[in-house]
Amino acid sequence: MAKRVTGPEIEKLIQLLAKVPGLGPRSARRAALHLVKKKDQLLGPLASAMAEAHQKVRICSCCGNVDTIDPCTVCSDERRDHSVIIVVEDVSDLWALERAGAMNAAYHVLGGTLSPLDGIGPDDLNIRGLIERVGDGRVKEIIIAVNATVEGQTTAHYITGQLSGLGIKVTRLAHGVPVGGELEYLDEGTLTAALRSRTTI
Amino acid sequence: MAKRVTGPEIEKLIQLLAKVPGLGPRSARRAALHLVKKKDQLLGPLASAMAEAHQKVRICSCCGNVDTIDPCTVCSDERRDHSVIIVVEDVSDLWALERAGAMNAAYHVLGGTLSPLDGIGPDDLNIRGLIERVGDGRVKEIIIAVNATVEGQTTAHYITGQLSGLGIKVTRLAHGVPVGGELEYLDEGTLTAALRSRTTI
Repeated sequence: MAKRVTGPEIEKLIQLLAKVPGLGPRSARRAALHLVKKKDQLLGPLASAMAEAHQKVRICSCCGNVDTIDPCTVCSDERRDHSVIIVVEDVSDLWALERAGAMNAAYHVLGGTLSPLDGIGPDDLNIRGLIERVGDGRVKEIIIAVNATVEGQTTAHYITGQLSGLGIKVTRLAHGVPVGGELEYLDEGTLTAALRSRTTI
Repeated sequence: MAKRVTGPEIEKLIQLLAKVPGLGPRSARRAALHLVKKKDQLLGPLASAMAEAHQKVRICSCCGNVDTIDPCTVCSDERRDHSVIIVVEDVSDLWALERAGAMNAAYHVLGGTLSPLDGIGPDDLNIRGLIERVGDGRVKEIIIAVNATVEGQTTAHYITGQLSGLGIKVTRLAHGVPVGGELEYLDEGTLTAALRSRTTI
């Protein structure tokens, strides 16, 4: 803003809101104004929720999930099948897979993918933690659910190598046509994979 | 989420973030995860900024602007020309006009528009406050900068009526082609207004 039209506290709030993914400088202003108008219904509760999350949040020392307890809600859930571990790049992938609700397994968050160009090697990812978890003999299957990108596949290949000889089944997600997807708009790689992995009806 | 995968504090944070304009349920989750990852750089400062704003924010008793002081930064700025008052519907309009930086005037926020269908009459808007401000004899011009909607124009008409006979110049924003706008995509009303108000080059 050219000239100051509001207090520095509100301008600081706008600046910080603009750093939240999904909000830009313009929508941060709109969000701040909405929050300020809903002072007691939204701004106050959100301030408290953020302060509480800031104070309590931790990274699960077992799987790398974000939670307020350690081990996290998933790792300490005894109704889950802890003999199957789904390996994901990021916490958001864990949450996405849980929303699908297809498996009742445990998870392991790598915290990224191998990327030599960015200087990210095996020691920068939570791979050692995975090998340790496998060491207790309880794990029967590792499902590698990394993104279908070059970095993701490189990482999947590296982890598969590390796990070989331990007598554990290592699987990966199927490639194919997304449910609801139109063939016309799919790339050649996906179509080829879908044809190769075709199933009998 | 079908099953709990994280602590209730983080789920509460996601629920509240989803109520912020510009964020939906999905982007709220992404935002929460980002905030939690940037715990000390972003989540903590944002929690403090929100708590401070919640505690300090007030509505200017003179013009209706949102600020942490009363009268607000604009009303208490003696370098502004307080003989000109720009009347706007909402605080966001005040901020938008200030970003343009074209005028060095005072403002008056109505807090909405007349809308009989929604039961919003003159007493629900900050119109009485405007008449009172005009009463001190210092004001020479009122610029009515409401939206170019039916409700906005009805409101403008009502205010003009209230101000008539007080010897004050009442003006409104010009209608015309937006700067950078393409004629092809403009509606007939705008084009007619732009032609009627044509200026010599």
